[in-house]
Amino acid sequence: MRTEVAIVGAGPAGLLLAHLLAADGVDSVVVETRSKAYVAARIRAGILEHSSVELLRSAGLGANIDAHGDEHRGIYLQWPGERHHLDFVDLVGRSVWVYGQTQVQADLHAAAEAAGRQVVYEAQDVALHDLESERPFVTFTDATGAEQRLDADVVVGCDGSFGPSRSAVPEAKRETWERVYPYSWLGILADVPPSTDELIYAWHPDGFAMHSMRSATVSRLYLQVPNGTDVADWSDDRIWEALSTRLGASQEGWELRTGAITEKSVLPMRSFVQQPMRYGRLFLAGDAAHIVPPTGAKGLNLAIADVALLAPALVSLLRKHDATLADAYSETALRRVWRCEHFSWWMTSMLHQSGDAFDAQLQLSQLRWVTSSTAGAAGLAENYAGLPLGF
Amino acid sequence: MRTEVAIVGAGPAGLLLAHLLAADGVDSVVVETRSKAYVAARIRAGILEHSSVELLRSAGLGANIDAHGDEHRGIYLQWPGERHHLDFVDLVGRSVWVYGQTQVQADLHAAAEAAGRQVVYEAQDVALHDLESERPFVTFTDATGAEQRLDADVVVGCDGSFGPSRSAVPEAKRETWERVYPYSWLGILADVPPSTDELIYAWHPDGFAMHSMRSATVSRLYLQVPNGTDVADWSDDRIWEALSTRLGASQEGWELRTGAITEKSVLPMRSFVQQPMRYGRLFLAGDAAHIVPPTGAKGLNLAIADVALLAPALVSLLRKHDATLADAYSETALRRVWRCEHFSWWMTSMLHQSGDAFDAQLQLSQLRWVTSSTAGAAGLAENYAGLPLGF
Repeated sequence: MRTEVAIVGAGPAGLLLAHLLAADGVDSVVVETRSKAYVAARIRAGILEHSSVELLRSAGLGANIDAHGDEHRGIYLQWPGERHHLDFVDLVGRSVWVYGQTQVQADLHAAAEAAGRQVVYEAQDVALHDLESERPFVTFTDATGAEQRLDADVVVGCDGSFGPSRSAVPEAKRETWERVYPYSWLGILADVPPSTDELIYAWHPDGFAMHSMRSATVSRLYLQVPNGTDVADWSDDRIWEALSTRLGASQEGWELRTGAITEKSVLPMRSFVQQPMRYGRLFLAGDAAHIVPPTGAKGLNLAIADVALLAPALVSLLRKHDATLADAYSETALRRVWRCEHFSWWMTSMLHQSGDAFDAQLQLSQLRWVTSSTAGAAGLAENYAGLPLGF
Repeated sequence: MRTEVAIVGAGPAGLLLAHLLAADGVDSVVVETRSKAYVAARIRAGILEHSSVELLRSAGLGANIDAHGDEHRGIYLQWPGERHHLDFVDLVGRSVWVYGQTQVQADLHAAAEAAGRQVVYEAQDVALHDLESERPFVTFTDATGAEQRLDADVVVGCDGSFGPSRSAVPEAKRETWERVYPYSWLGILADVPPSTDELIYAWHPDGFAMHSMRSATVSRLYLQVPNGTDVADWSDDRIWEALSTRLGASQEGWELRTGAITEKSVLPMRSFVQQPMRYGRLFLAGDAAHIVPPTGAKGLNLAIADVALLAPALVSLLRKHDATLADAYSETALRRVWRCEHFSWWMTSMLHQSGDAFDAQLQLSQLRWVTSSTAGAAGLAENYAGLPLGF
């Protein structure tokens, strides 16, 4: 097989890149190790930044967001006895949208099918070759067991933490940073209408809790739990009790609605960056280059921002033989990556119990400041609602 | 001896409290373990917040600040290759003043002498008694070796970390928080005109450095050094070389002026809070109740803010027998204390090398944000220039 851009990974980053490239007449083939059903069902992020929505709309992918997404003006921040609303629209003129990654994935997949774009699922032993040459290629074993070779002008790694792209960059040519947080999230999906109109981020002595939603009938909730937590130790009753204590007990006139839990899992919290995001004819985008803890809702948005930079860079490189944007890609993308890494770390470290009593007091002072100072609130809002693309 | 308010400690907090009380006709006696010369020469903070200056002016202590102080619109934040000015006046409408603690101390001492207020220096074995009663008293041995007893209606501990007041609160009645930072400051005074118009806070891979000044002919500079550093290992040449590297090497067209170093010392970095700030008829103010690392220039200002709350509370308690303000003192003061504890920790942790490579990248991203986002800059400015008194 031969294409212009070989894309490794059929998550939102890979499919959106293929979509944007196709709009400019650049061919691509997406190669994915997982099955179509697995990728479609994967539950991940649920918040789209203002600029992510704008980009998806301008790419013709906004119809379902506008029809089924839920525009939020802000979030609630709370701690025992106090709940405060931060209105991002008032503070920085931008809103966010509740629209799950599964929905983004479904829209991208539908667009790929409608356009007849090739996505190879269940590809095994994916390997990247000759990345420093102008004729890189990707090999894999397809679902029928046949060895395949995909020749391309450019390879893009959109294959997350566990794919082969990240480590296809020789060790001497990459720098990495990593932080593993000393706590995890226990996340649930529940068939129950949200108990609140917007997300609640709750500081609590027992640990962080969060209330979010996926639709008018489905709630998504999280609890801070110790690393190594076994979901089997968390019965539905125990989960609802902990959520009720951390989210609601101290809020007069508010009650947490409970319902059937349909999904339950433990999510580790990690920060990771690999730079540069380019090596020869290999470009990295999304989780392949960087991981953020989920507290700031940045993972999916950062992948979209990478792709928004990378697509025009590749079009320019392949159509006009102008490498300016491609050469600037890594540095430009990393500015936003580190902004989001910092913000995600900041939100995480402000809201989670570290076990240190002084930290807890600093957190409470910071929460009081963020919810009482216009500058403090605007600082959170501009990062959460998202900086303009190209920042 | 008998007085209305026995004040332990003749630093700025103690002398200012005596001054403010006297203005409302409340008598006090200040008892200090050190000599007058020692207290007068002690080199400490050098920056007054807007509200500290306002308070000192309204108390008739502003003449020398206006004559000899230096009003600064903001500070510089820098890292290799970049220097940015944050203009507090533009951002939040408030400036700060360079006016050393030694000068504040001299003004307060002059006012006390002019008014004939009693300050007992070189008091040994100071002890506080019967604090839960309405007739507390302080005992000490005076400079002549005579045992003294000072009876009062109220005792105020303005005696810092090492005085007896803090621990006069029974252990069961106090909560404390402490953090010792894994680095110190090597501070120098030098007979050289400042190399810059405003303070420079410099992030550098070798460690934090700071350029400040005390007058048109005296500079005050700091270097981050490891804990346990012996000043003997830092020759004048080594100090100037390190300062030059960290402050200036990458700033084109800028040079660090050097001169005779007249003082050299290593300052540990610590955060500490004890609460409540009241126990019966004992009130704590300033360093007796809280310590901040010096990075945010908050220590002296926080002491002034405590005293600004406490003086009217004591006047009301003793003159009108109204305990409302006195009862609210601890909680009100602690709101600002924790705001400043958080800000001081935040400035400290943004600017010092922790030894962790991921921290360093987060710091740089935060510095870029603070110097490029209006919200980020205003957040630093409103904390640095100081929140209104009574916040």
